[in-house]
Amino acid sequence: MEITVLSQAELKQVLEPDRVIETVESVYTQKASGRTAVWPSVEYHFEEKNAVMDIRSGYLAGDKLHGAKMLNNFPLNVGAGLPAFTGMLLIFDSENGMPLALMDASYITSLRTGAAAALGVRTLARKTSKNLLIVGAGRQAFFMVAATLLAMPQIENVRVHDPINSANADEFVSQIRMRLKSELNLDLPDKVNFTARPDLQAVLQDSDAVITVTRATYPIIKKEWVKPGTHFSCIGADMLGKEELDPELFRTARAFADDRKQCLSFGEMEIPFKSGIISEQSIQGELGEVLAGTATGRISEEDITIFDATGLALLDIATGKLALDLAREKGLGQKVFI
Amino acid sequence: MEITVLSQAELKQVLEPDRVIETVESVYTQKASGRTAVWPSVEYHFEEKNAVMDIRSGYLAGDKLHGAKMLNNFPLNVGAGLPAFTGMLLIFDSENGMPLALMDASYITSLRTGAAAALGVRTLARKTSKNLLIVGAGRQAFFMVAATLLAMPQIENVRVHDPINSANADEFVSQIRMRLKSELNLDLPDKVNFTARPDLQAVLQDSDAVITVTRATYPIIKKEWVKPGTHFSCIGADMLGKEELDPELFRTARAFADDRKQCLSFGEMEIPFKSGIISEQSIQGELGEVLAGTATGRISEEDITIFDATGLALLDIATGKLALDLAREKGLGQKVFI
Repeated sequence: MEITVLSQAELKQVLEPDRVIETVESVYTQKASGRTAVWPSVEYHFEEKNAVMDIRSGYLAGDKLHGAKMLNNFPLNVGAGLPAFTGMLLIFDSENGMPLALMDASYITSLRTGAAAALGVRTLARKTSKNLLIVGAGRQAFFMVAATLLAMPQIENVRVHDPINSANADEFVSQIRMRLKSELNLDLPDKVNFTARPDLQAVLQDSDAVITVTRATYPIIKKEWVKPGTHFSCIGADMLGKEELDPELFRTARAFADDRKQCLSFGEMEIPFKSGIISEQSIQGELGEVLAGTATGRISEEDITIFDATGLALLDIATGKLALDLAREKGLGQKVFI
Repeated sequence: MEITVLSQAELKQVLEPDRVIETVESVYTQKASGRTAVWPSVEYHFEEKNAVMDIRSGYLAGDKLHGAKMLNNFPLNVGAGLPAFTGMLLIFDSENGMPLALMDASYITSLRTGAAAALGVRTLARKTSKNLLIVGAGRQAFFMVAATLLAMPQIENVRVHDPINSANADEFVSQIRMRLKSELNLDLPDKVNFTARPDLQAVLQDSDAVITVTRATYPIIKKEWVKPGTHFSCIGADMLGKEELDPELFRTARAFADDRKQCLSFGEMEIPFKSGIISEQSIQGELGEVLAGTATGRISEEDITIFDATGLALLDIATGKLALDLAREKGLGQKVFI
């Protein structure tokens, strides 16, 4: 039988962030209706290399697709001229188990994670939000900014803080307009300003929405620095032991999960849950339930809202299928026999 | 970057059962020295289709390879002219996380499972064994016979019993010599006889080694039918709830695992373990430990020995890497950009 292989270069030709946002929203909504299955994740640390691999998999019953994504994060690769972050996504037809496609997973992961963060902001931040703060100026931050500016055209100020090295934030800010144009063909309105901000506590005082996207395993953001009404989309904590927010924030915040079980097991909610600050009942809902209208998101302008995005293979599978359909339309993709 | 894709047709051109037996033996031995990791398996039942998918994955530290295999078993496909059993194997370089290859997983699974069963027989059956019984005349039985005849040239009589439909065993026996020659290029000595046997209880009375390879979820073989000295390589039970042997057999048998944890969780040992007939300490060792000389296999000619093979992705990864190396030598394999 024949399957299609899509390279990262081909994915970049066919995938646009706005279509990915629509796709991710549709998956979250399907999940809320119970027509999806998130299968247990598998992870492993290669200790001598400070490297991590993880396997995420799942089933989209509505789309009749299932699949698995295997990601590798080998940070020492950077010194050897290799990408640190590589992975493969396999998609199968759930009608008959036949393989449909193999593709690079790292670019899809970046796009769909940006879309998830942006949907968290659009759904749970105050509608009047103008000031966005990105905590973490690493490789993923670019995709967070791109998707959030698309989903939230009212944003005027994007502030970038890097907790490890403030020069990263300076460099990020100096290149962002050019990169959004050259890498994603996005033209930003002139009103959007980008600033690097080393002063995290100060910048939190007028941040409406915050996206945390670091590899931290300790709270970067203290509860007392956070003003009422702030929204957090927490992206970094996607494995055991990672955390970015002060667990105390969860005592009063309205907290939402991408997947309840994953968030309590290894997401931003892991530490608050294990330390008894929250219980499973403290979760107000999954983001998809808010999108579907079966859970209530923000109630007042004073609420602190938190969206914990641990990452679902469902998003990769649906985005990968979108890429496959678009590639077919354009005559792209490599055919192989299997 | 470039990866190699191997189709089932290409795998059939390069993989020979004797090399696969060597490879599987080497993996079991590596596992006994602690230089491997078996990652948790993931499985899912598509109930409306009576279909199953599972994901197995792991790490061969010595070979610096890791990978994952995703298998689909959709029995209703047969009516639609599609293969029931499909799957993909992904192999990565554990030095840097780079993907190396994608290949069909179903043929590799069949070959390496045959090799596992054969190594169980060679390691744990009496050296004078002449009579082999195969219980289950389905698709996998062919590979069990091929590998066991290669590993145990002293076998003279191969009996085949099918617990569901005795006509399956008749058909299997009538074609086996021709298939061994045409599919695997194996010439058998004239002394080897094949017989279909509907009378399971009777044939057990002079069976030296038994390979069970059915989809059963109940004990097919009763304890009182088994004579002292018999060896069992149990292949069928590789998921929750499957079993082929009377749990009571485990009270006195010397039992060996391919992987202790998997065997107790979802292998042939699952039911005896959950019903309290055996404990983890009842396992005499893993097959690799016997091969490595750190566990004792059969002690007396009277021992009943059991090898529970639940299946390890490690075997697929090592066999896949063998295929990749042989394909390169022969200029086979499809190159794709990823």
